[in-house]
Amino acid sequence: MSNEAMEHIDFEELVQLAIDKKYRQLKEALLELNEVDIALFIEELGQDRSAIVFRMLPKTLSADVFAELDPEFQEHIINSITDRELSEIVEDLFVDDAVDMLEEMPATIVRRVMQNTKPETRKLINQFLNYPENSAGGIMTAEYIGLKKHMTVEQCFAYIRKHGIDSETIYTCYVMDQKRRLEGVVTVKNLLMNSSDALVGDIMDDNVIKVATTTDQEEVVETMIKYDLLSMPVVDSEDRLVGIITVDDVMDVMEEEATEDIEKMAAMLPSEKPYLKTGVFELAKNRIPWLLFLMLSSTLSGAILERYENAFAAIPLLVSFTPMLMNTGGNSGSQSSAMIIRGMSIGEIEPRDIFRVIWKEVRVGLIAGIILAVCNFIRLLIQYPGNTMISLVVVLSVFVTVVIAKTIGCTLPIAAKVLKADPAIMAGPLITTIVDAVSLIVYFNLACMLLDMAV
Amino acid sequence: MSNEAMEHIDFEELVQLAIDKKYRQLKEALLELNEVDIALFIEELGQDRSAIVFRMLPKTLSADVFAELDPEFQEHIINSITDRELSEIVEDLFVDDAVDMLEEMPATIVRRVMQNTKPETRKLINQFLNYPENSAGGIMTAEYIGLKKHMTVEQCFAYIRKHGIDSETIYTCYVMDQKRRLEGVVTVKNLLMNSSDALVGDIMDDNVIKVATTTDQEEVVETMIKYDLLSMPVVDSEDRLVGIITVDDVMDVMEEEATEDIEKMAAMLPSEKPYLKTGVFELAKNRIPWLLFLMLSSTLSGAILERYENAFAAIPLLVSFTPMLMNTGGNSGSQSSAMIIRGMSIGEIEPRDIFRVIWKEVRVGLIAGIILAVCNFIRLLIQYPGNTMISLVVVLSVFVTVVIAKTIGCTLPIAAKVLKADPAIMAGPLITTIVDAVSLIVYFNLACMLLDMAV
Repeated sequence: MSNEAMEHIDFEELVQLAIDKKYRQLKEALLELNEVDIALFIEELGQDRSAIVFRMLPKTLSADVFAELDPEFQEHIINSITDRELSEIVEDLFVDDAVDMLEEMPATIVRRVMQNTKPETRKLINQFLNYPENSAGGIMTAEYIGLKKHMTVEQCFAYIRKHGIDSETIYTCYVMDQKRRLEGVVTVKNLLMNSSDALVGDIMDDNVIKVATTTDQEEVVETMIKYDLLSMPVVDSEDRLVGIITVDDVMDVMEEEATEDIEKMAAMLPSEKPYLKTGVFELAKNRIPWLLFLMLSSTLSGAILERYENAFAAIPLLVSFTPMLMNTGGNSGSQSSAMIIRGMSIGEIEPRDIFRVIWKEVRVGLIAGIILAVCNFIRLLIQYPGNTMISLVVVLSVFVTVVIAKTIGCTLPIAAKVLKADPAIMAGPLITTIVDAVSLIVYFNLACMLLDMAV
Repeated sequence: MSNEAMEHIDFEELVQLAIDKKYRQLKEALLELNEVDIALFIEELGQDRSAIVFRMLPKTLSADVFAELDPEFQEHIINSITDRELSEIVEDLFVDDAVDMLEEMPATIVRRVMQNTKPETRKLINQFLNYPENSAGGIMTAEYIGLKKHMTVEQCFAYIRKHGIDSETIYTCYVMDQKRRLEGVVTVKNLLMNSSDALVGDIMDDNVIKVATTTDQEEVVETMIKYDLLSMPVVDSEDRLVGIITVDDVMDVMEEEATEDIEKMAAMLPSEKPYLKTGVFELAKNRIPWLLFLMLSSTLSGAILERYENAFAAIPLLVSFTPMLMNTGGNSGSQSSAMIIRGMSIGEIEPRDIFRVIWKEVRVGLIAGIILAVCNFIRLLIQYPGNTMISLVVVLSVFVTVVIAKTIGCTLPIAAKVLKADPAIMAGPLITTIVDAVSLIVYFNLACMLLDMAV
């Protein structure tokens, strides 16, 4: 990444210090860095030296750095430290980071980690491991500031000073009753703007925006963007607060969801890992199913060509326009489906908008179809003078195909959503395959009609 | 949007209150709502009643609600209020919201707004209007908490209490010297965790992660995600702090950039507005240029088909495999280009990775090519028994096409990046057009060689 903020860090110099075993100098240099950069440095250094460097970090920092490391490095470090060190790190990790880590570890490591965890942490981790991965429960963490209505601002600050260091965010605090039911929310800004003897119950906002553990993570993202929230409370079915989702985790989800959509829209199964870290076989495994399905589906277009063999035996020129026709239809349909899929992903378009969408796309299709047809007609008249009727068949087909492609392209993603399937699969590749067949049928039927051919 | 958090708001009831002119009840109900929901309600109500409802909001809320409204409603409201009211709202807006608003307004409104703005605000707005839209300067705001090194924690809190209400975020404070050069950063959490007589200079972090006004917004996003920042300082060429970027603006940028990438990847010019608010002519205008270009480019494939007219006159069956072949090539190439474009967008893949990427894609192409060829061969043997040689030509072409398509698909986006063009245009549609031509050349050449045909 070309990152201005990082340019001043000279990793090579630090690596040299590690090679020369100048550990005191190295430690001093590391303490100047952010935990993200320390983790990057450890990964740069390679597994062999990673444990030595990791163990020289002060306790206050080691869990933060550990949470940022790649799973393979986490595994290596767990294997290199004592049970006691392991226990300390796990207790210091935020629950969501601990769960993310455990989900990547082999069973033997999971067992060892769980054995070295306090009963209450173990219970929490087990509870969090059970939430579905893409739900609010799957991305929340348990470390938040919980206050009571009867506390004064002064008492709140004392509480935050004492417990804040273990919380993922202190800036939004949650007010709960005896049964942990969420009653309100108060920000540190609210607390600072009120006198020290004001009661939380009087200054809190009781109109809390919250989600359930089962809420889909995409909806969490949309709600947090809509209301510009820094953290979002997550409640169980009895309205009890069980965790919070912080904005940094939401940004990760946004990036991940957009990547997944783009992968699905290009006819791939979404990958778990970043591209450069995904193996060749896994990449192939993600790509072959759709390629195979689309390859077999497109034989339909082949069958249509076969059926009209006589037509292009009579006028061979007809065949040479098929790539242009199929491409234009595919591209027109892909444009529409991409816009609708994205609109649904970000919550702008809903299934109930279907008629507005179709009406819009039909009109766009008419405009685009006319312009493409006219441009093409001019080109054909110049390139194939004397073949006016054939040219007419071609441009009429272009026009009809574009309109149909836009209609299919906007309808199928919405239909998928209604049928609870993922709209993103109704993107370019599948639309193209369907539109190819349609455009050939239109083309050859128009040819037979207008050129007076028998099929 | 199916939004659990909103389900409890009954907009219809509120609209009825407005129609019945029960303004006192309406005002009470509105004050219970979040500014985002009040803005949504005003838009739901329609322009005619929007100004009346807007003017009943208390001063403290009106700028917040104004910032959330669509430009058309902002324009209508500006036209309905007095110069004095306008002046108050503009002074209360964060500079970034004021600039966003002015960029959408007609010149007459801009002039009226500027005339009713204090000289220093006007200067700031003019300065901010000059930063390029996609740069850090274009998304930053000027309202932040600036501290000095010699201040104590207690003095800081007093300062925050006094100025915090006008700041976009109070949680990260910036420490500057006399010349406004950035010296360090201190969070409210740091301040709370230290004793009230500690000096800012002693507790601040002087390893500040920052960007320049000219930094591209994509890079701002990547840096904030990497370091989990809630706000990012923006400095000018002399390292003076000129503004901050808050995490909520960064989330908007992320959503916008992903949408733009998806639009470009589906061969469209990116649109400024959400789909449902974009007019038919604008949608058509964004889509036609690429459709036209790709339509004319794909005549190349037609020309290739024409050149090999003799081949398919001799064996008409050959033609019927062309859609399958072109589709499979196009899809294979689209998969690769989509992964590489996305990888570059999120900063994972850089041009210097080109050889690793090509090597990976060639191997994926070999695996996918073999599997697709074998499946196809089996199908062809069953469907066209006795045509073994033709089947062999088809599957060899599939194999070669897939490998070439994967190579082209991963190379072109990186090449675009090197040439400072947008990688996202080297996506499915363009790759398909190129691969179509390549696959036909491969196919007919193999056919001529293996089937002993003269062209």
